[in-house]
Amino acid sequence: MKLFTYFRSQASYRVRIALNLKGLAREDVYLHLEKGDQFAAEYRAVNPQMVVPTLIDGEHRLFQSLAILEYLDEVYPEPPLLPREPAARAWVRGFALINIADSHPLIVPRIRHYFDDVLKAGEEQKLAWIRHWIGAGLEAMEALLAAHAGSGRFSHGDQPTLADIGLVTQVTPARTFDGDLAPYPRVMRVYDHVMTIPAFAEAAPAKQPDAE
Amino acid sequence: MKLFTYFRSQASYRVRIALNLKGLAREDVYLHLEKGDQFAAEYRAVNPQMVVPTLIDGEHRLFQSLAILEYLDEVYPEPPLLPREPAARAWVRGFALINIADSHPLIVPRIRHYFDDVLKAGEEQKLAWIRHWIGAGLEAMEALLAAHAGSGRFSHGDQPTLADIGLVTQVTPARTFDGDLAPYPRVMRVYDHVMTIPAFAEAAPAKQPDAE
Repeated sequence: MKLFTYFRSQASYRVRIALNLKGLAREDVYLHLEKGDQFAAEYRAVNPQMVVPTLIDGEHRLFQSLAILEYLDEVYPEPPLLPREPAARAWVRGFALINIADSHPLIVPRIRHYFDDVLKAGEEQKLAWIRHWIGAGLEAMEALLAAHAGSGRFSHGDQPTLADIGLVTQVTPARTFDGDLAPYPRVMRVYDHVMTIPAFAEAAPAKQPDAE
Repeated sequence: MKLFTYFRSQASYRVRIALNLKGLAREDVYLHLEKGDQFAAEYRAVNPQMVVPTLIDGEHRLFQSLAILEYLDEVYPEPPLLPREPAARAWVRGFALINIADSHPLIVPRIRHYFDDVLKAGEEQKLAWIRHWIGAGLEAMEALLAAHAGSGRFSHGDQPTLADIGLVTQVTPARTFDGDLAPYPRVMRVYDHVMTIPAFAEAAPAKQPDAE
């Protein structure tokens, strides 16, 4: 498999974790999002949205991190990234979507560039925006974990799921942008545990060959 | 089933379409998001993220629209919202996620309120922001449809899928906010076709009892 990736991309990070958990080897192709590599014509032909990640698996070209995670779980089912029971699967997906579909889209590079180049809002307002939305997601995650009988060392159950992947890619940018994590002890308990698992630790941005 | 919904909510719209397609009856509970009904303590206990939709199916309380759609497809499989083959499922999910995880999160009421109350960016800058990000998603959808052999009357294949649901909830706010749809003829061809299907048409915001 070939992964078009950027070390800092949380969406790429999600796919790296999943590939590691499933023991799937990959060849990385590095795009530097801050330098605009994603806008090159060659990459636009690979991914018309001009975002990472893209995963190539044989003849299949896969895009959007959650669609890739679901694909990997269907084609390479062991170990599973989702529990078996539909309501539990919905909880896990819903939890992950707080990161994937609510918080993270608000802080990606294209949004930060829009703040700089179009809104010209200034560094302080941009940072306040980022911290506000990361915090809103963390607050929802903390409340969900508090109310969920299935949470403990993991967000749900006894093994890593999509929920933990979304939790990690919520906490990581909180740290990058100096967000306050003290109000989220349940989130941090899960984070600290899953980051002891090599599949998670080795997928971290700082461990990637293109890290700066 | 009980659906906590708001007529204008595109995430609620997605779930209404899916329930209609599957012929599942529901009882609606209306929350007026502009009036802040979602922040009431009773609703916070139902959905700690204080967003709609929430779907109650028997003992299960389901949140996040995509997680709900996947749940419905697992528990009530006919007619399916996803094709059978994993790479096709990934395409359909990836297409829908352009709306669900990239464009739509940037224009929801909480974001517009942040623009008004915190950024104080002014109406013109807020509208430009909304149109810019809806347009970026539409552009990606148009390019994906152009490159996808499986697209035609539907985004993929011969029956409605998650991709069409995401397409409809991309076009609807584009219309609400006077976005230019002329550059997206493939998107609009699918939109115009699926809106002839009662399950889609009857789920539209203007058809809901709480519509203003």
